[in-house]
Amino acid sequence: MCGIVGYIGPRQAVSVLMQGLKQLEYRGYDSSGISVLNASSIKTFKKIGKLVNLESIVPEKNRAKVGIGHTRWATHGKVTDENAHPHVSNCGKISLVHNGIIDNYVSLKDELIKKGYTFDSDTDSEVLVHLIHYYLNGDPVSAVQKALERLDGTYGVGVLFADYPDLLIGARNGSPLIVGVGEGEMFLGSDASAFIGLSKQAIYLDDGEMVVLTSKNYKTINRHNKIVDKKVEQVEIDTTENLKGDYPHFFLKEIHEQPDSIRRAIGGRLLPDFGTAKLGGLNLDKRDFFDIKRIHIIAMGSALYAGQIGASVIETLARIPTQVFDASELRYSNPIVDKETLFIAVSQSGETADTILAVKEIQNKGGRVLGVINSVGSTLARLTHGGMYIHAGQEVSVASTKAFTNQVMLLNMFALVLGRMRDVPLSRGKDLVKEIMAMPEKVEEALKCGEIVKEIAYKYKDANSILFLARGTNYPVALEGALKVKEVSYLHAEGFSAGGLKHGPLALICPETPSIFVITEGEYFEKMIGNIIEVKARDGKAIIVTTSSDERLKELADDYIKVPEVDELLSPLVTIIPMQFFSYYISLALGRDIDQPRNLAKSVTVE
Amino acid sequence: MCGIVGYIGPRQAVSVLMQGLKQLEYRGYDSSGISVLNASSIKTFKKIGKLVNLESIVPEKNRAKVGIGHTRWATHGKVTDENAHPHVSNCGKISLVHNGIIDNYVSLKDELIKKGYTFDSDTDSEVLVHLIHYYLNGDPVSAVQKALERLDGTYGVGVLFADYPDLLIGARNGSPLIVGVGEGEMFLGSDASAFIGLSKQAIYLDDGEMVVLTSKNYKTINRHNKIVDKKVEQVEIDTTENLKGDYPHFFLKEIHEQPDSIRRAIGGRLLPDFGTAKLGGLNLDKRDFFDIKRIHIIAMGSALYAGQIGASVIETLARIPTQVFDASELRYSNPIVDKETLFIAVSQSGETADTILAVKEIQNKGGRVLGVINSVGSTLARLTHGGMYIHAGQEVSVASTKAFTNQVMLLNMFALVLGRMRDVPLSRGKDLVKEIMAMPEKVEEALKCGEIVKEIAYKYKDANSILFLARGTNYPVALEGALKVKEVSYLHAEGFSAGGLKHGPLALICPETPSIFVITEGEYFEKMIGNIIEVKARDGKAIIVTTSSDERLKELADDYIKVPEVDELLSPLVTIIPMQFFSYYISLALGRDIDQPRNLAKSVTVE
Repeated sequence: MCGIVGYIGPRQAVSVLMQGLKQLEYRGYDSSGISVLNASSIKTFKKIGKLVNLESIVPEKNRAKVGIGHTRWATHGKVTDENAHPHVSNCGKISLVHNGIIDNYVSLKDELIKKGYTFDSDTDSEVLVHLIHYYLNGDPVSAVQKALERLDGTYGVGVLFADYPDLLIGARNGSPLIVGVGEGEMFLGSDASAFIGLSKQAIYLDDGEMVVLTSKNYKTINRHNKIVDKKVEQVEIDTTENLKGDYPHFFLKEIHEQPDSIRRAIGGRLLPDFGTAKLGGLNLDKRDFFDIKRIHIIAMGSALYAGQIGASVIETLARIPTQVFDASELRYSNPIVDKETLFIAVSQSGETADTILAVKEIQNKGGRVLGVINSVGSTLARLTHGGMYIHAGQEVSVASTKAFTNQVMLLNMFALVLGRMRDVPLSRGKDLVKEIMAMPEKVEEALKCGEIVKEIAYKYKDANSILFLARGTNYPVALEGALKVKEVSYLHAEGFSAGGLKHGPLALICPETPSIFVITEGEYFEKMIGNIIEVKARDGKAIIVTTSSDERLKELADDYIKVPEVDELLSPLVTIIPMQFFSYYISLALGRDIDQPRNLAKSVTVE
Repeated sequence: MCGIVGYIGPRQAVSVLMQGLKQLEYRGYDSSGISVLNASSIKTFKKIGKLVNLESIVPEKNRAKVGIGHTRWATHGKVTDENAHPHVSNCGKISLVHNGIIDNYVSLKDELIKKGYTFDSDTDSEVLVHLIHYYLNGDPVSAVQKALERLDGTYGVGVLFADYPDLLIGARNGSPLIVGVGEGEMFLGSDASAFIGLSKQAIYLDDGEMVVLTSKNYKTINRHNKIVDKKVEQVEIDTTENLKGDYPHFFLKEIHEQPDSIRRAIGGRLLPDFGTAKLGGLNLDKRDFFDIKRIHIIAMGSALYAGQIGASVIETLARIPTQVFDASELRYSNPIVDKETLFIAVSQSGETADTILAVKEIQNKGGRVLGVINSVGSTLARLTHGGMYIHAGQEVSVASTKAFTNQVMLLNMFALVLGRMRDVPLSRGKDLVKEIMAMPEKVEEALKCGEIVKEIAYKYKDANSILFLARGTNYPVALEGALKVKEVSYLHAEGFSAGGLKHGPLALICPETPSIFVITEGEYFEKMIGNIIEVKARDGKAIIVTTSSDERLKELADDYIKVPEVDELLSPLVTIIPMQFFSYYISLALGRDIDQPRNLAKSVTVE
């Protein structure tokens, strides 16, 4: 999603900003730009498309020591050079970058036009730079404050003033903004990767806070202009993780990292002798768990499907009714909150706006929310009562893989803890711990299907669309598999409960629309066989992904993918692997931009 | 789905059977056949495709007085003449029709092949006729009983024996079977329409029961060969409803019937002075409602989406947490059942196998289930503790329209009752009753959009695929709209929460993939505007369906469809109308078989 970078200090601002934008690149964007301040004059460069386009118009040598930069993911206004940020005031003396959405921009724009301002773009953001100009009367900080007060909506902003060369202002409300504190230099970033390798000291702004930077100093203030004391925290991001290594794409690299990332998820958290797990950071007394009568999981996208798998496992092991909510729906549904319900928010980035706002709604209603999050120190991590980090490491590909599997693993371990507190006996607990410990190896083994799946994906690259079908704990795997295909290949794929197929979607079945079945041993096995036969009877193609060795599946399958046998509850961690490969290779066959698919962004920081 | 008809009596069996099959035709099938018994010899005629194909091979004059007929919807084995029913024993002396699925047919088939039987088809059903032959030893009733005992799975069957010319045997387990009791003649039918106009007296068999028919008599027995006393009931089906009238398709006719069918749904059920409704048939003391802490709705297909709308309205008015379950998933999930949870099963036909089996699982766990059903006297209607008939009248089109809206209306009224028992004040109750009473007229008005929608549908008939987007109470309308398009046009359409769009599905957006937005005034309005802009910014086309008069929508829309303003809670009843028209006209433009779309069946009587 949109990214912000800002710099003030002794270095060449242009190269700091360009490096920062490069680091933010993976978040997904459609245009980019920078403004730098040089001898009381602001120079702005903006360009649609990839960063190389911007690089081609930015001067290689430029002595500016202060500047702001932005990668844009369009919300208001099409993808054009004019709509890219920074936006500059009519006088040319104020430049601004903005993340978020200004809900009341139409009325503000009308008002400003009446006051004589002209607009160069169709964005909501541009109103803010004109508002700041309108309120500017000798005090830039007060002008920014007054302008921000007029906004309904969300923002993370960086502002530059031609007449104040040693000043950079940042502010946050709903969109993350982080200050990098250096020695005689200061940074701004929408996340800490914007100044990676340049500063390891950071201040995380909270909503309603503003930061006033000079090269030597920073001052954080709240809406009432009161100084706020902020803790300077150590940033832990390893730049080397950012390298693709021998892999052609981050997506493929991250698929292959899953044995290791799962190892990190379970590392130090299992108690084999007691057949349970120990999850630090929950900030809940174990006795509090006795009062939990219901669990509500809140998430979006892949995290939502991870939540659905978690819900199924929690209900099975702990017998606690667990429901999963689309956060964007929950926020506006006037949710029913009570003391006996535990809420769990799942988000890779911890910056998902829909999820954050739903969590705030729940918290305002007195609900207790835990987080299942990847990004340490992210907004959600700090907002929630407690939580579990999934330790997937930085995920660069827009389409999630290792974060998804680690979310599933964490929720599995959480289910085990709850289950063991209730009716799961020691012996079953020990078995499950053993199974969990074996998962990195099982996933390693599952990764061997890559070559077979590649062939299958190439074979079906001209499909009209693709159906994904499963039941039970693997039903969300079908949903996630279909989402992966949509995201990266732009082919329409959709997941259904195999039982739901004949209630409508079966009409889509024809030789050009293959179906991918995920089938494991257990309650549903015979019914799934029946569903596969239904599809075959209508000349549909069946690609079968299975943990089972039942010979009938080989006979029925047009294409057959075997993954290791594992406990039904943990099976999503291996059945998802061929889905990930399938979406990767079909996208490769179709020549897609795999790591940065069109229209999408890595962390979705607007509602 | 598969249909059964059987006859024994003085009339020409061929014409009775063909008329019966014609009545069952609307249920959807891919092949059909009949067997008739004439001078101790069985003659069988079977053909894939429509009934006209069968008609062309059936002799016009045939003096047989007993016979069985079948329409098949393939589950095991492709659509071929051989796989069509009836199936005949190797000796040619036993003929059988079967609905349902035999789970253990593979092992039974192996066993029979070893015994020397040869198979003419790939169906599961054929094993049954050979089993009956194997057990036949002078007593056909006992042979059928012994054969049925060997089956795992579900069945509704009709059997004919060449050596017993005045005998017709029927049996049921999981698939409906009804006996028509005439004067000196008897009928069998998978539903009562099979003998419509010929008999109004019927016996509804229960699971495990068998009926032994002669032209003069019937005998119903259970698995232990004990006679069961069955009530003869009056069948209320009006044949004239079955006529298309001036409409080219039942689908279009039923769309236009909605004002009338909604009128029937609310008729006599509202208490305007008390601002609430009175729903007979619930079989619950009003005081029982105080104990309800949760509501779980169980359904499949369109009924599931009607349930989701109902859940949203119940939560809003009554503040009772309400969750909706895919019945096929619920059955195998070891569902958590308690005293404080009320279950509601929603099904048009009342014969939906997935829903029936989930209801039985809930009932076996002690749960209390109400039904929201169209077909009076159906399996679900008789199985549930109590319920509400939706009075939509017979729905012939495979894709549901008027049953969907009436399900929504009934759940709305149920929500009103619960809401008024809790915190909804008299004034709001009276307003809602007024709104409900006005709905037939509002829907009438909404139907005027037909011509505009026709133009839009023709314009987009070459779309790659279509997205449906909405929020809140209208989110399920998007899901149902997409299902309609899938079912009837075979175009891939999918519904998303508008908030979920940017978490993946947005990658599908391009000029060839239009989006249909459903937007009403209320909490979500501004956010929906933002989502529309997101799509437009990526060169997507926006078709906007709205109850609002906000001018911005007209400006944003590539195509604009206005429906009458109504209370947000009731808005799905008007916003669904353009969706129904859209799916109808795009299917017409694509030349689809609208009333009987490929692969689908009207009531889904197998799991």
